[in-house]
Amino acid sequence: MSNKRGFASDNNSGVHPRLLQALQQVNVGHTIAYGDDDYTHAAQNLLKQHFGETAQSFFVYNGTAANVLSLKAMTNSFNSIICAETAHINVDECGAPEKFTGSKLLSVETPDGKLTPQLIKKHLHGFGFEHHSQPKVISITQSTEMGTVYTPAEIKELTDFAHKQGLLVHMDGARLSNAAAYLNLSFQQITADVGIDAVSFGCTKNGGMFGEAIIFFRPELAANFKYYRKQGMQLASKMRFISAQYTELLKDGLWHQLASHSNQMAQKLAKEVAQIPQIKITQKVEANGVFAIIPPRIIPQLQAEYFFYMWDEHNNEVRWMTSFDTQPEDIDNFVAKIKELL
Amino acid sequence: MSNKRGFASDNNSGVHPRLLQALQQVNVGHTIAYGDDDYTHAAQNLLKQHFGETAQSFFVYNGTAANVLSLKAMTNSFNSIICAETAHINVDECGAPEKFTGSKLLSVETPDGKLTPQLIKKHLHGFGFEHHSQPKVISITQSTEMGTVYTPAEIKELTDFAHKQGLLVHMDGARLSNAAAYLNLSFQQITADVGIDAVSFGCTKNGGMFGEAIIFFRPELAANFKYYRKQGMQLASKMRFISAQYTELLKDGLWHQLASHSNQMAQKLAKEVAQIPQIKITQKVEANGVFAIIPPRIIPQLQAEYFFYMWDEHNNEVRWMTSFDTQPEDIDNFVAKIKELL
Amino acid sequence: MSNKRGFASDNNSGVHPRLLQALQQVNVGHTIAYGDDDYTHAAQNLLKQHFGETAQSFFVYNGTAANVLSLKAMTNSFNSIICAETAHINVDECGAPEKFTGSKLLSVETPDGKLTPQLIKKHLHGFGFEHHSQPKVISITQSTEMGTVYTPAEIKELTDFAHKQGLLVHMDGARLSNAAAYLNLSFQQITADVGIDAVSFGCTKNGGMFGEAIIFFRPELAANFKYYRKQGMQLASKMRFISAQYTELLKDGLWHQLASHSNQMAQKLAKEVAQIPQIKITQKVEANGVFAIIPPRIIPQLQAEYFFYMWDEHNNEVRWMTSFDTQPEDIDNFVAKIKELL
Amino acid sequence: MSNKRGFASDNNSGVHPRLLQALQQVNVGHTIAYGDDDYTHAAQNLLKQHFGETAQSFFVYNGTAANVLSLKAMTNSFNSIICAETAHINVDECGAPEKFTGSKLLSVETPDGKLTPQLIKKHLHGFGFEHHSQPKVISITQSTEMGTVYTPAEIKELTDFAHKQGLLVHMDGARLSNAAAYLNLSFQQITADVGIDAVSFGCTKNGGMFGEAIIFFRPELAANFKYYRKQGMQLASKMRFISAQYTELLKDGLWHQLASHSNQMAQKLAKEVAQIPQIKITQKVEANGVFAIIPPRIIPQLQAEYFFYMWDEHNNEVRWMTSFDTQPEDIDNFVAKIKELL
Repeated sequence: MSNKRGFASDNNSGVHPRLLQALQQVNVGHTIAYGDDDYTHAAQNLLKQHFGETAQSFFVYNGTAANVLSLKAMTNSFNSIICAETAHINVDECGAPEKFTGSKLLSVETPDGKLTPQLIKKHLHGFGFEHHSQPKVISITQSTEMGTVYTPAEIKELTDFAHKQGLLVHMDGARLSNAAAYLNLSFQQITADVGIDAVSFGCTKNGGMFGEAIIFFRPELAANFKYYRKQGMQLASKMRFISAQYTELLKDGLWHQLASHSNQMAQKLAKEVAQIPQIKITQKVEANGVFAIIPPRIIPQLQAEYFFYMWDEHNNEVRWMTSFDTQPEDIDNFVAKIKELL
Repeated sequence: MSNKRGFASDNNSGVHPRLLQALQQVNVGHTIAYGDDDYTHAAQNLLKQHFGETAQSFFVYNGTAANVLSLKAMTNSFNSIICAETAHINVDECGAPEKFTGSKLLSVETPDGKLTPQLIKKHLHGFGFEHHSQPKVISITQSTEMGTVYTPAEIKELTDFAHKQGLLVHMDGARLSNAAAYLNLSFQQITADVGIDAVSFGCTKNGGMFGEAIIFFRPELAANFKYYRKQGMQLASKMRFISAQYTELLKDGLWHQLASHSNQMAQKLAKEVAQIPQIKITQKVEANGVFAIIPPRIIPQLQAEYFFYMWDEHNNEVRWMTSFDTQPEDIDNFVAKIKELL
Repeated sequence: MSNKRGFASDNNSGVHPRLLQALQQVNVGHTIAYGDDDYTHAAQNLLKQHFGETAQSFFVYNGTAANVLSLKAMTNSFNSIICAETAHINVDECGAPEKFTGSKLLSVETPDGKLTPQLIKKHLHGFGFEHHSQPKVISITQSTEMGTVYTPAEIKELTDFAHKQGLLVHMDGARLSNAAAYLNLSFQQITADVGIDAVSFGCTKNGGMFGEAIIFFRPELAANFKYYRKQGMQLASKMRFISAQYTELLKDGLWHQLASHSNQMAQKLAKEVAQIPQIKITQKVEANGVFAIIPPRIIPQLQAEYFFYMWDEHNNEVRWMTSFDTQPEDIDNFVAKIKELL
Repeated sequence: MSNKRGFASDNNSGVHPRLLQALQQVNVGHTIAYGDDDYTHAAQNLLKQHFGETAQSFFVYNGTAANVLSLKAMTNSFNSIICAETAHINVDECGAPEKFTGSKLLSVETPDGKLTPQLIKKHLHGFGFEHHSQPKVISITQSTEMGTVYTPAEIKELTDFAHKQGLLVHMDGARLSNAAAYLNLSFQQITADVGIDAVSFGCTKNGGMFGEAIIFFRPELAANFKYYRKQGMQLASKMRFISAQYTELLKDGLWHQLASHSNQMAQKLAKEVAQIPQIKITQKVEANGVFAIIPPRIIPQLQAEYFFYMWDEHNNEVRWMTSFDTQPEDIDNFVAKIKELL
C-alpha cells in the first residue's frame, strides 16, 4: 500500500493526529449511549460558542446524511429544493435527498457554483398551485464545489430574498471551515448572522475521521429532529467519538489552522501552475480546490503519480484538491512533474 | 464525568485498545475514499474466511443501517418482513425499516425472542393476492434481544421452511459474536452453512467504535447494493477506519476473546443473583444479557449506582447487559449492592 | 356474463340508477377541472350540512387513498398508527399506508373489530424516546370489518382517551352510511360530535361508481392537504363526476335509504340462517355483513351459485355481505340453497 | 353555472355521450370487483388488438398515476428518469414521481417538447458510479405538452439509442389518441413497433370520465405490477366502469373520431388566428393545442369570455386547447372576440 499523498480529495487523507489522540482520551469507561453524554454536551456547547446562541446541533455520520436530514426537517414531501447544478445533493448523493424527503430538486446552472437571486428566480413560481412542487428551500454550498466562497453579503442577499418569499436557506458546509478561514470570519458571521436557517457543518474533510454536525438556527427545525435522525439511520451509539473530534477541532482553533493550511496549499499550487502557459485555471481559487484545463495528453501519466479526478471530460478540466496534510513539497514535486511531462 | 461501568448496554462501553491502535496504524497518508482501498479489501477477504466464499460484504455506519439496507436489498415495497415482536427492527429503529423499504413489518410474540416455523405460520397467507403485502423476508436476531441463542439446527429449520415458501432469511447479528462464542462455532457455521441469506454483522457492541458489516450470501442481493448504500446515506468516505476495526477483530480471534469474556461475565452475574431468593431470572442466559424480575423498591437506588434499563415496567423485569470491558469486581460490587439494598 | 347477484362484497354491485342519472345531469359543457367547480362546491356544502360546520372535505378516487392520504395529513414519518388487526389499512391495502406515510402500523387483536382504550394501551409507550415510532393516530373502522358498529359513546371514550395522550383519531368510513343508518343518527353525531378528527367517507360501497371523500374536522389537517392529494396521484381532473354522486346521495336521503336497505337484508339473512342448526353466526349483525361458521362440505357448491369469500379458512368462517341492490328473493333463494345442500 | 365551452383544457370537457351510455350498459347486476371481470378482460383484449400481442394492460384512475406507477415498475429508487423540462411528470405532478419511486428526475430544455438523443446525452454519464443516480428511463410525451407529435422515426431513434445504453423508454400518452390521429397510424405503430417499453394511455382527455391504461410491452415490467398498483392506491373496485369506457372508445374507432375532431379544431383555430398580425403562433400545431404570443392587454378580457391558461407569463404566450366537443362556432366566436378586442 503506497499511501502517497495526491490531489484527489480532502477525504483521501487520514485523520489529524490530535483528533486521534482525542478519540483515545474519551475512551474511558462507560458513558450513556446515543448522545446524552457529557462529551456530546461539551461539543454542543462549543458549537454554540462558534455559531451563536440559537445554534441547536445534532451529530450524524456523514455529509450526505447531514444534508438530507436537515432538508427533511425543512420540507414536506410536496416541496421543492433549489440548488446549484453542481451541488453535492444534486450530483453526488445518488438521489438520497429525493428518496428520503420525497421532495423535488430543482437545479440551476451557475458559472462558479454560487447561486444568486437572479439565477433562482426561474424556479419561483406556482406558489399555491397544487400541481406544482412548492418551492421551500434554497440550498447553497460554502465553500462551493468549485472552490469558490460566498461573501457574507452574498449570503445575506440570498437569505433576505428567500425569507421574503417564505423560503428557508440551507447551507452545505462540508467545507465550511475552508470558507471561514478564507474569509477570516467566525462561523457565526457566515451562517446565523447572515440569515442561514440550517447548516451541515463537516469535519471529515478537515482532518476528521467520521461525523458531521447539523446545526439549526430555528427552534422549530430542531423540535422533532431527533426522530428523523434515528429513522434516517444516523443515530450513533458511541456518539462520544464524534463529539470528541468536534471538541478538539473547535476548542483552540485547530479547525482554522487546518483549513488555512489547506487553503494556502491551494494558493501555492494555483500560483505555480498559473505560470505554466499550457495550463488555464478556470475558477477563482479561494478555498482548497484548484480547477484547471490542462493538455489532455499528460493527464494519465500525471494521475498515475498523483491521483486526481477529471472534472469535465469534454474540455479537459481537472480538479485538484488540497488537504490539511498536503505538504509544500507535494506541490513542488507535482508541479515539477507537470513541467516534466509538458 | 464519572465513566463508571454499568450494565445498561454493551454500547455504553468505549473501544477496545487494540482497535484504537488499529485506527492509528491505518492513519498513514492518503488512500482512495469510499471503500475501494487496500484496507477495505483486506477486511473483506477476512470476512470471506470467516463467513465462507459466498460472502460479499459491505460496510455501513451502524446496526440500524445494516438491518434496513440489507432488508431493502431483499424486498420490494409491496413485501412484508416477519420478525419477533421484540426485534430491534420492530421496536428500536423508529420506523426506519418501513420508511426506507416501504415494506410492512409483521411481528410475532415469542417467549424468548426466537422465531419458529410454527410461530411464523400465521403470517404466511395471501400469496399472490394483490391486496395483501407479500411475505418475503423472515428476520431473526442472533443472539436475540432476550440474550438467548439460536442453535444451528433451529436456524436451519427456519431457513428451510422459509426457502420452501419462497422467502429469504435475514439475520440481525449486532451480537453475532456473542452467539458464535457461546456456541463455540464459526460465523460460517451459523450463517451460510445453515441457509442464512443476509446478515448484519456488528462490531460496535463487541468493542468497536463505529461501523457494521452487511454480508450477502446470494450474489443477486449484492448486485445493486452499492447504490442502496449510497442512497441510504451510509457510504463512509474514510472507510479504512471501519475496515481496520474488522481486520483487527477477525485476524487472530480478538472477536472471540471479547465476546466470550462478555458472555462469561453474564454467566457470573446470573449465577450469583440466582442465589438471591427475591430475584427471578426470566430468560436463559446464553449470550451477554441477564433478564430478571427484582423487587421494585431497590430499582432506583441500584440504577443510581450502576445504570441499567427496565425491560418491562409492568412486572419489574430488568435487563442487565455485560460488555467486553466488564470486570469480575464490577459484578461482585453490583451483587453486593443488591444484597445490601434488599 | 351472468351478473348474478351474490354476497361477495358490496363493491361487486353496480351503481344505483339515480347516481348514473346524476352523472348524466352534470355532463353539460365545460367546467373548470380539478375541483374548483360549482358541482364540487355544492357537494362540499352538503357535506358541511351532514358533518357539521367544521367539515373540510376533499374528494379522492377510492377508499385506500382516502385512508392513506388522511393518515398522511395526520402524521410525520416517525409516527405510528394504531388499528385493529382486521383493519383495511392493515390487511387489505398492500402496505400502502407504510409506503406513502413512512409510518409504522401497530395492530391490535379484537374480538369484534372494535378498538377500546384498554386494547390500545399496550402500544402507548416510548413517548419522547427517539428509538421508538411515536404513537400519533388511532384509526377505527365504522362500521367495522366484522359488521359491527361503534356506538357514539364508544367512539367518544376512544377520542377522549386519544386526545388526552396527544393522539388523533381517524375513522375509516368506507361503510359509514351503514353505521349511521343502523344507529339512526346523522353523520355529524357519529364523527365531529364525538371527537373524530378525520374521516374517510365512502360512497362506492353504498351504490356509487367511484370516489370517496376525506373530511377533516381540524383546519390544520386540511391546510396543506391539496398538495398531498396531488402528490398522492388522487386529484381527479373531471371531479364533477365524483361530486355529483355525493350530491345525489346526500341531498334527500338516498344514502340512508340504500344503507338501511342493505342493513335490513343482512338482518333478514342472519335471522333465517340462525334457524339452521348447522350454522353458527359469529358476530353481531349490525351493518351489512353476516359472519358465520358453516359446514365446510357445502362451501364450494354454495359459492358456485352465490359467490362469497372465506373469512377464516381454519374454522370455516365465511363472510356474507349484502348490498344496496340485494333483493329479498336473493336471500330466500340463498337460504333455500343452503338448506338443500345440508 | 355557465358551462360555456372554452379553451382551457381538454379535461374541462365532460364525457362523450357514447361513453356515458356504455357506463349504463355495464351497470347490470354483480361482477367480481378489482378487475378480474369479463368487462375488463374484454377491454384488455381490445387493447391487445390496438397495441399488439405483447401488450399487457392495467387500468388506473388518472394520468399522474399511470405515469408514476409505470415508472415505478421500470426503476429502482437509485435510478434517474430523463424527461423534457415541460413534461407533465416534471412540472404538473407535484413531485409524485419522486415521492413514489424515490428516483431522481433529470430534465432537458427542448424547443418543442420533444427529446432527441442529442439533447439527452448530457445526462448519460456516471454509469456504475455509486454516487450518481443511475440513468434508467427516458420518458417522452406523445403528443407533447407543446402540441407537437413525434414521428415514428423520431421515436425509433430514441428507443434504439436508449436500449443501446441499457435504458428503457416510457411514453406519457395522455393524448396518445391525438398523436395517432394526426399521424394516421395505429397505436401499435407508434408504440410497440418503434420500441416503446411502457405507455400511459389516457382516455380522460379524449372524452372519458376517469381511468387511464398502463400498457407494458415487456413481461418483466408487468410481472409484479398488480402489487404496485394496489400499494399505489390505484386499484379500482368497480373496475368495469373504467373498462367499459376503453371498450367503447376502441371497439369501432370512436377514439379516432374524437381525437381527429379535436385536432381539426386546433387546425382551424391556428389557421384563423394566423391571419391576425398581432398574434404569433409559437409551435407547430399537430395535435390539439395552439400556442401563441398575443398582446397582453387583451388577455384578461378574452379569458373572461373563454377561459384559457397562460403558458409563459414572461413573453405573453398562451395555450389554447381544443377538445372532442369543441364546435366550429366556438372558434368562430373566439376569433371574432379576439378581433373585437384588438
